[in-house]
Amino acid sequence: MPTAVKSVLPVVLLGCGGVGRHLLHHIVSCRPLHANQGVAVQVVGVGDSSSLLVADDVHSGGFDDALLTNICNAKSAGSPLSSLLGQGHCQVFKNAEASGKVIEAATTLGRSTGLVLVDCSATYETVPLLKDVVDHGCCIALANKKPLTGAYVGAGLPVIATVTRIIASGDPISRIIGSLSGTLGYVMSELEDGKKFSEVVKTAKSLGYTEPDPRDDLGGMDVARKVESLYPSELGPDAMSTKDFLESGVAQLDKSMEERIKAASLKGNVLRYVCEIGSAGCQVGIRELPKNSALGRLRGSDNVVEIYSRCYESSPLVIQGAGAGNDTTAAGVLADILDLQDLFQKTA
Amino acid sequence: MPTAVKSVLPVVLLGCGGVGRHLLHHIVSCRPLHANQGVAVQVVGVGDSSSLLVADDVHSGGFDDALLTNICNAKSAGSPLSSLLGQGHCQVFKNAEASGKVIEAATTLGRSTGLVLVDCSATYETVPLLKDVVDHGCCIALANKKPLTGAYVGAGLPVIATVTRIIASGDPISRIIGSLSGTLGYVMSELEDGKKFSEVVKTAKSLGYTEPDPRDDLGGMDVARKVESLYPSELGPDAMSTKDFLESGVAQLDKSMEERIKAASLKGNVLRYVCEIGSAGCQVGIRELPKNSALGRLRGSDNVVEIYSRCYESSPLVIQGAGAGNDTTAAGVLADILDLQDLFQKTA
Repeated sequence: MPTAVKSVLPVVLLGCGGVGRHLLHHIVSCRPLHANQGVAVQVVGVGDSSSLLVADDVHSGGFDDALLTNICNAKSAGSPLSSLLGQGHCQVFKNAEASGKVIEAATTLGRSTGLVLVDCSATYETVPLLKDVVDHGCCIALANKKPLTGAYVGAGLPVIATVTRIIASGDPISRIIGSLSGTLGYVMSELEDGKKFSEVVKTAKSLGYTEPDPRDDLGGMDVARKVESLYPSELGPDAMSTKDFLESGVAQLDKSMEERIKAASLKGNVLRYVCEIGSAGCQVGIRELPKNSALGRLRGSDNVVEIYSRCYESSPLVIQGAGAGNDTTAAGVLADILDLQDLFQKTA
Repeated sequence: MPTAVKSVLPVVLLGCGGVGRHLLHHIVSCRPLHANQGVAVQVVGVGDSSSLLVADDVHSGGFDDALLTNICNAKSAGSPLSSLLGQGHCQVFKNAEASGKVIEAATTLGRSTGLVLVDCSATYETVPLLKDVVDHGCCIALANKKPLTGAYVGAGLPVIATVTRIIASGDPISRIIGSLSGTLGYVMSELEDGKKFSEVVKTAKSLGYTEPDPRDDLGGMDVARKVESLYPSELGPDAMSTKDFLESGVAQLDKSMEERIKAASLKGNVLRYVCEIGSAGCQVGIRELPKNSALGRLRGSDNVVEIYSRCYESSPLVIQGAGAGNDTTAAGVLADILDLQDLFQKTA
């Protein structure tokens, strides 16, 4: 019988820089909305690069909004989480102990309400912890392209929800192709206007479209097995610093990129950095695509995903929208967290 | 604690012509898939324009797949549902009693599992029954533009799911504008190629893009308060038959439509029949839009929805895909039914 269900979603957040901070802000500002929907998002832990803040009692309902707001303010002021010790019922742990504490929470909550570990960090370091948490029967939500799911996240776009919906409706999906990096989408479309590769990369960084090291984006998405990088290994992270790459390295790529763009446009095509999932598996790299396709028409940092299925065979189902930006990504992560609620304990 | 939940979704289907028949087919072919997802869609009743077929015991698990397949075959052969009497554990009721029987099922099931009344008919006649069923705490899913929800359905496109997701993520939506009639989308884009309005309407009908009476589409979507019709009342259903409209009436509109198209293209615009929901409320009608917008670029019978919000302010979130066709619509309806499962009884 239809009833209003009440879901409690305990959350531990790793990384409270740009996206993470926006996420905490959204969680606070959405409280009334979520209450109406019978959902309570409870932040029981927040970690940054140096330490982890954990609620004294993870069953207590998590940090209050005052503390969450203080965390946002502290982080935007550049202060470490440890500076918040004493504000509200929480303890601080150095990173050495942090993972243990998260697992502890996952173990306790995994038995009762469940736990969502939200990773808004831009590192690989969290991957082992993410796996542990999943092994404890808890859920994870990832903001960032680095850990595994970049191609599925597409910043805030409802790609997973749509794919799930199509599959559930008995419509077999044959192919998904998309420009899933707001950064690379921006770079490729700016190049068409004749700008230098190095200029475009620097502008993208200054606009906040790239990771701290732009090569994290230019290297392609690690979600795929075959990835074409936009820079050679001589210019890679092992060979030179981010600073050197931006000051001297990237400019070495200007000429070759200019030639590729010209060659494509002579054929009425544009270059797009796309991820394609189809019968051939998953491939990521530069493709020449007709100017007059959803992907070819793509401008700026929008993401575009084309989904081909029996129902969407001749003309694909297209989802397009902003593919970068902290606010948009945070909103997408929050939506992903809420999508998990069906897996969580409900109390009528 | 995350657990596989088992949802039972009893369904009564009204209208088993094109879309309804495809829906029954999808339900049968998706059984294994849905079983894996812990969902069981149980068809306990099917109605056509003359009668209603109801399971002897609506708690029994509904019609078996053999009977559902027979229903599909009977309907594609043009036989009435009553011809299926005696095949499987079901009873047939003439329309006079049909509504009562549906309410009976809604009352019984409303107290236990709940019920989804799926309307794939192209009539207004079902609206009172739909309302009754909702009053009994049951759910409805609509395939068709006639009863109320055309603008939300957009054939198979995941528009509701996306809007819900954006709102839940705390991103306020300011404006939604879309071409939500595959038929009118097709008509408007074909007109650009200089074809006569009357030709285009007849082709649309022959392609199965229109309702049996194309004026149901040309009259605009009744979801909106202000609707601009593409035909004057002298050519309306009260003034002439569908046959007369197609043979003589519609041709009277060719000239004026041609002039509107010309006037727009002189300004680099195209005409689109759009539904816009914004601060001004909901408006439906012909708009001049730039050729180079998602809506302006629309060709054929695709639907396009542009969603504007804080996160999708400068460039909207765009959802585009097939907006007509029985298979696509049926798949969309099935996805809508499955979206309801959270409201239904779950047994671990």
